[in-house]
Order: sequence, then C-alpha cells, then structure tokens
Amino acid sequence: MPSPLENAVETLIDVFHKYAAKDGAPTMSRSEILTMFQKEMPGYVSVRNFTLMSNMDMNNDGDVDFLEFIIVFSSLTIVCNQCFVEHLKKA
Amino acid sequence: MPSPLENAVETLIDVFHKYAAKDGAPTMSRSEILTMFQKEMPGYVSVRNFTLMSNMDMNNDGDVDFLEFIIVFSSLTIVCNQCFVEHLKKA
Repeated sequence: MPSPLENAVETLIDVFHKYAAKDGAPTMSRSEILTMFQKEMPGYVSVRNFTLMSNMDMNNDGDVDFLEFIIVFSSLTIVCNQCFVEHLKKA
Repeated sequence: MPSPLENAVETLIDVFHKYAAKDGAPTMSRSEILTMFQKEMPGYVSVRNFTLMSNMDMNNDGDVDFLEFIIVFSSLTIVCNQCFVEHLKKA
C-alpha cells in the first residue's frame, strides 16, 4: 500500500491527466483548469479572484503543461504551509 | 471532506513537520531526511543511490527547509509523470 506521500505523487499525476485528457492534448486548456480548480480545490481557490490562466501559463503558449501545473500546486502548498506555521506560532 | 488534491497539500505539510519537528527546528536535518524517505517514500527512492542532502540542501545551510522539500518532491513527481506518459505511449 502506498504511503500518504506516495499517494500525493500519484494524485497529482492522476488529477492532471484526468482534466488534461478531456480534449486529447497532454496539456490543460483554460476551461479544463477552471473545471479542475472548481472540482478539485474548492476549498483553496476562489476561481473569481484567482487569475488562473495568466498565472499558470508561464510560457504563454495558451496551455498549461504538467510542469506549470506542479509549480502552481507547489506555490499553493508553500502558501498553505506559511499559514500553518503562523497558526502554530499563535497557538 | 477534502478532495484528493487538497489531501495532497495537507500531506506535504504534515509529513514535512512530522519529521522536521523531531529536533525542534523548522527544517529537516540529514538524519530526519533519511528517516523520512525510508519511511514515507520506500517505493520511490533507494536511499543508497540518492545523494539526498547535497541535492535537497540547495542553499547549503546544512538543513532542508519546506521550499527545498517541495522542490525535491516536485522533481520526483515530474520524473514519475514522464515515466507514466512514456508508459501510456507504449500501451
């Protein structure tokens, strides 16, 4: 049985390909990203105030590849960790 | 209930702090990293052939902070995704 950390690796790959595959291309389009965040990270990202595509599509090719997806996921995780550490300090 | 992707964020924060906290510092020492990989990613990383500390400790301060941990985790995930995509092509 995979550990939670191994599960996290598999989750990232599964989720990316689940939404990227909708139009057959190995990247995520704007609509695929919106759908992914609404369904997969409702608690983290309010789609209205998160200018998704411009932030994620770092090479401006109109799509988000796996590397760009991981960079945004990592950035969100780092921000969450900062909140967690701040919370610990106040506790 | 958190989604799998939200769970992955929480897992990364939980695992880092579980091992980083052993010596009270908010970073991971060499021994904490070895223990983490052996316990949390046995299927992914053979500790013998993965020169951990030198790869992870990018600012060479002798410890691995959360950002460095996320960079290594992301790199592993990207490599796993490449294997997954190659596998898909052969299938």
